Amino acid sequence: MTTQQQLQQWYELAQQLRVDSIRATTVAGSGHPTSSMSPADLMAVLLSGFLRYDFNDPDNPNNDRFILSKGHAAPLLYAMYKAAGVISDEDLLSLRKFGSPLEGHPTPVLPWVDVATGSLGQGLPIGVGLALAGKYLDQLPYHVWVLLGDSETAEGSVWEAFDHAAHYGLDNLIAIIDVNRLGQRGQTELGWNTQAYAKRARAFGWEAMEIDGHNLIEIDQAYSAALAVTDRPTVIIAQTKKGKGVDALEDLGGWHGKALKPDDEKQAIAELGGERYITISVQKPEAQEQPAVTGNTHLLQLPTYNKGAHVATRRAYGDALKALGAAQPDVVVLDAEVSNSTYAEDFAEAYPERYFEMFIAEQQMVAAAIGLQVRKYKPFASTFAAFLTRAYDFVRMAAVSRANIKLVGSHAGVSIGQDGPSQMGLEDLAAFQAVCGSTVLYPSDANQTAKLVEQMSDRSGVVYLRTTRESTEVLYGAEEQFPIGGSKIVRISDRDQATVIAAGITLHEALKAYNRLKNEGIAVRVIDTYSVKPIDVHTLHQAARDTKGNLVVVEDHWMEGGLGAAVLDAFAGHGDRPSYNGPQLQLIKLAVVDMPGSGTPDELLHAAKIDAEAIVEAVKFQVRQPIGVSN
Amino acid sequence: MTTQQQLQQWYELAQQLRVDSIRATTVAGSGHPTSSMSPADLMAVLLSGFLRYDFNDPDNPNNDRFILSKGHAAPLLYAMYKAAGVISDEDLLSLRKFGSPLEGHPTPVLPWVDVATGSLGQGLPIGVGLALAGKYLDQLPYHVWVLLGDSETAEGSVWEAFDHAAHYGLDNLIAIIDVNRLGQRGQTELGWNTQAYAKRARAFGWEAMEIDGHNLIEIDQAYSAALAVTDRPTVIIAQTKKGKGVDALEDLGGWHGKALKPDDEKQAIAELGGERYITISVQKPEAQEQPAVTGNTHLLQLPTYNKGAHVATRRAYGDALKALGAAQPDVVVLDAEVSNSTYAEDFAEAYPERYFEMFIAEQQMVAAAIGLQVRKYKPFASTFAAFLTRAYDFVRMAAVSRANIKLVGSHAGVSIGQDGPSQMGLEDLAAFQAVCGSTVLYPSDANQTAKLVEQMSDRSGVVYLRTTRESTEVLYGAEEQFPIGGSKIVRISDRDQATVIAAGITLHEALKAYNRLKNEGIAVRVIDTYSVKPIDVHTLHQAARDTKGNLVVVEDHWMEGGLGAAVLDAFAGHGDRPSYNGPQLQLIKLAVVDMPGSGTPDELLHAAKIDAEAIVEAVKFQVRQPIGVSN
Repeated sequence: MTTQQQLQQWYELAQQLRVDSIRATTVAGSGHPTSSMSPADLMAVLLSGFLRYDFNDPDNPNNDRFILSKGHAAPLLYAMYKAAGVISDEDLLSLRKFGSPLEGHPTPVLPWVDVATGSLGQGLPIGVGLALAGKYLDQLPYHVWVLLGDSETAEGSVWEAFDHAAHYGLDNLIAIIDVNRLGQRGQTELGWNTQAYAKRARAFGWEAMEIDGHNLIEIDQAYSAALAVTDRPTVIIAQTKKGKGVDALEDLGGWHGKALKPDDEKQAIAELGGERYITISVQKPEAQEQPAVTGNTHLLQLPTYNKGAHVATRRAYGDALKALGAAQPDVVVLDAEVSNSTYAEDFAEAYPERYFEMFIAEQQMVAAAIGLQVRKYKPFASTFAAFLTRAYDFVRMAAVSRANIKLVGSHAGVSIGQDGPSQMGLEDLAAFQAVCGSTVLYPSDANQTAKLVEQMSDRSGVVYLRTTRESTEVLYGAEEQFPIGGSKIVRISDRDQATVIAAGITLHEALKAYNRLKNEGIAVRVIDTYSVKPIDVHTLHQAARDTKGNLVVVEDHWMEGGLGAAVLDAFAGHGDRPSYNGPQLQLIKLAVVDMPGSGTPDELLHAAKIDAEAIVEAVKFQVRQPIGVSN
Repeated sequence: MTTQQQLQQWYELAQQLRVDSIRATTVAGSGHPTSSMSPADLMAVLLSGFLRYDFNDPDNPNNDRFILSKGHAAPLLYAMYKAAGVISDEDLLSLRKFGSPLEGHPTPVLPWVDVATGSLGQGLPIGVGLALAGKYLDQLPYHVWVLLGDSETAEGSVWEAFDHAAHYGLDNLIAIIDVNRLGQRGQTELGWNTQAYAKRARAFGWEAMEIDGHNLIEIDQAYSAALAVTDRPTVIIAQTKKGKGVDALEDLGGWHGKALKPDDEKQAIAELGGERYITISVQKPEAQEQPAVTGNTHLLQLPTYNKGAHVATRRAYGDALKALGAAQPDVVVLDAEVSNSTYAEDFAEAYPERYFEMFIAEQQMVAAAIGLQVRKYKPFASTFAAFLTRAYDFVRMAAVSRANIKLVGSHAGVSIGQDGPSQMGLEDLAAFQAVCGSTVLYPSDANQTAKLVEQMSDRSGVVYLRTTRESTEVLYGAEEQFPIGGSKIVRISDRDQATVIAAGITLHEALKAYNRLKNEGIAVRVIDTYSVKPIDVHTLHQAARDTKGNLVVVEDHWMEGGLGAAVLDAFAGHGDRPSYNGPQLQLIKLAVVDMPGSGTPDELLHAAKIDAEAIVEAVKFQVRQPIGVSN
């Protein structure tokens, strides 16, 4: 039973959280006080009564995890940190100021924030990833608590999370929905119809409880009941009032994302009983024995392929991933129901305990990867390159989360053939390059793929690997090295009149073009830019100097933002690039411009003018030009 | 009552659809026969008993609409077209061949296909858009039928559609789920648990029916019952068998996406009763009087702003959109719960009957836009630029659908200030440029914004407008023109030593830099590239020739794929670009490289080195260089 004293303490703490949310936003001059006030009671009880978390050791594997999915309630989170004694009042009042780790929405710049939030609908699917780690990998009894706003349940990704959490029986996952009825610009779809939320959650296989989110006894009971559920995830649907506790704000429209002016602030704080200086001691988790890591660790034995054999790079990805699985027990794999196409299935068969089927839910897949890496696992997540676009917002936010995830897109480009444009990844190089701190890899050969997969494992940030559907010739010996940031000069002579730059499928076209041009007495250099980002600036500059500035870049990707853009960028000046000093650049880009249809891979490469014939033509056009006049 | 004769006809037709699906895929050597066989009975009854569609007049406003959301069942769709007498058997057997409109997944290359499918989970949300058009705009009694696979219900976008369809009471929308239990690589999450599907659908406010998808009487009754529902959308959950009717295929794993070999084909066709040559006459819709278009049409009166005033481009977007609404009754507007930030709310208030609130569901928002444009409306859909990444797969597929949609992303770049990186659109220029046939606009001033919004209305393809949160100075008179594909030379002299290229917020920084440089005796040209794609190649080439090849591009976007990439690309050779003939390019790119935090707009522009100071520094660095040595 909850004592009257405890209730009083929770009440005071909740009021402090409200007051501090108001104070911080008023000083900042912006932010979301009212969205922070509605779940203050929920958070007061969680923090002082239920959360098991060692603030001095955020990496403690036994810690509960808390995700503020409604990231705009950041002031509340920071007020909780102040109440927990880990930030000062001065820190709190640095909210939203330049250089302060208390950003407008939470990011892992703060040690207690595991993942960035602020793009709504992401917290719960990421929580699914953390709960998967807890239940199946860590096998530790910690709980994952996620506070959602009601508005964000309109995001489909939330229902992907409801679906997957139930499928995986994640009884260690507890979602709390702060049903304050008011979205940014008006009432939510469901208003205070908590029953509708409960019905949906139950239909998706969850335990659902409806409570008054300002009744401390109900909150206490709901948390206790949630912890007692052992066969399914639980959602607590809490009816609350936005701006609770202040007459001028409570349950009123027009107050979303608005800070109070100093005079209004004074009045509001008075209504809430004034400032308080409560510090609570958050309960630490009990130390638990973590089960030994699954499987034995072997030395990494990457697969090798004979030169001249024909092997698809997606096939090599599957082989290399399985090898990595044997050597690195922290590698985990996810796929979106196409593991027999991406070849993630080889890992799934060998290490089923470290494979999570995400079905056709790419957002949930990337979110789960983000959640898994919080607990230091190394997630590789794969689907068709085209379908990773479905999760682009999650990839963007993964960068804000400083997450280390490895994404693999198969079936890139028109060279997939008959399936047609809906299945062709033609924007992936652009999309993944435009992610802060990302790495973008595009191998042309099976041995190269294996070496890159090995390097992905320890690479930080968002790392993307693009694989090809078609079998292509093995070009490199198994002993060759392919460092990220490097390239391979595949053909070179001292008579080279132009340089052809390619990666993946088009490298094979470039080699065909090389032979045809050679027969006509035109020598060209051929460079394999398997590392698209970072790109090998030095080798490209040297080639431009050596071949009169004549470069032809050919890629199975839209004209915009892909390999050609990366090569052009290598010749532009910005902070981290060495400068180019050589003859005028004469660069021709060959890439996909018109919408493809179905056909054989060869027909489609030809129609897109990215095949050997198009390369030959471009080189001839270029070397025929008088020097100094561009393409 | 269904007569025995009718049942027999439906049965024969269903068998023909199966046989033809097998025949087409066997000739093609690839494709999805088994996924086409499971819903053949459902489609036979729909086509001959319920669909009201004039195949000779696909644009007939009274036509029912049918979307094959499970696009990989394209052979079934084409077999239906053959049965309807609009394609020949020879056409059918051209499936997946180069140049054939019968692509591996359906696209609007065929006149009866409204939207491309093949990225799963998109058909239903697009159907919501079509049903919104039917119920609220066309106000015609046609129905929208959507056939889904069971696997694709794992996509959150499907639940966004369930949610929104119920919210808008779309009783003209009928979804059919082909529950064949088998996904690409194994059993689906829910298998044949049709009750679980029904429970979920009902929780989301739909009428749900469970039937045996091979029982023609049950199908007939379900369709009749669905047509009789008048207050909510209906879903028919049909238990089926993949590969139904052929022993070697029926309900067996390992057959997804595999064509039969000729010998197996012969056996399968025999089991199905051999080839048939049934042609049916699909019932045409009754002609209906379409209600007069809402509202009066006025001459377009764009808002105008005084030079020197401070107005945010997002504010001008709202004003211009409202003006457009007065002049063009086919303009419709969507927003994802941030209309008071994007200023779509002005249109919503003025023309509530043409505004659809999409709540926080960006995938559904873009899908609805795609559906609305099928019925020739001009949808403008807005949210924060950052959150449009949530719908990137829908944007990609919009291009495959040859859809004409207008998307508007507000709050671009670090210049939004305190809210932090989760809210900053920093990859949108890259993402939208890498869309086939797209247009990308980025105005710097209110009058310019209005003129661009006007042009967006009639522009085909995916058109993207990037707006800025902050108020910026009005630079141009209201009489000036800003054609798409053009640019504005804002500062020019015959002594210009370098050219600064900017758009949006950074143009204002460029003008500050111009003044500072002028004070130091350095003249620079300043170009406003408000049209990022297509970019004004001619003006950029001329500037490079005039200013010794010295270009500085500055943008509030990641370094990759944005304005800088577009400018670099203007100097590369490819099919549609005029060639550059001038001094060696010395291009410096200023763009965002490190993850921003919170701060004032000025602090963040400065920290990202994209402010006036950074521009001044870059120009000085450049003009100090001896000619011929790059940056």
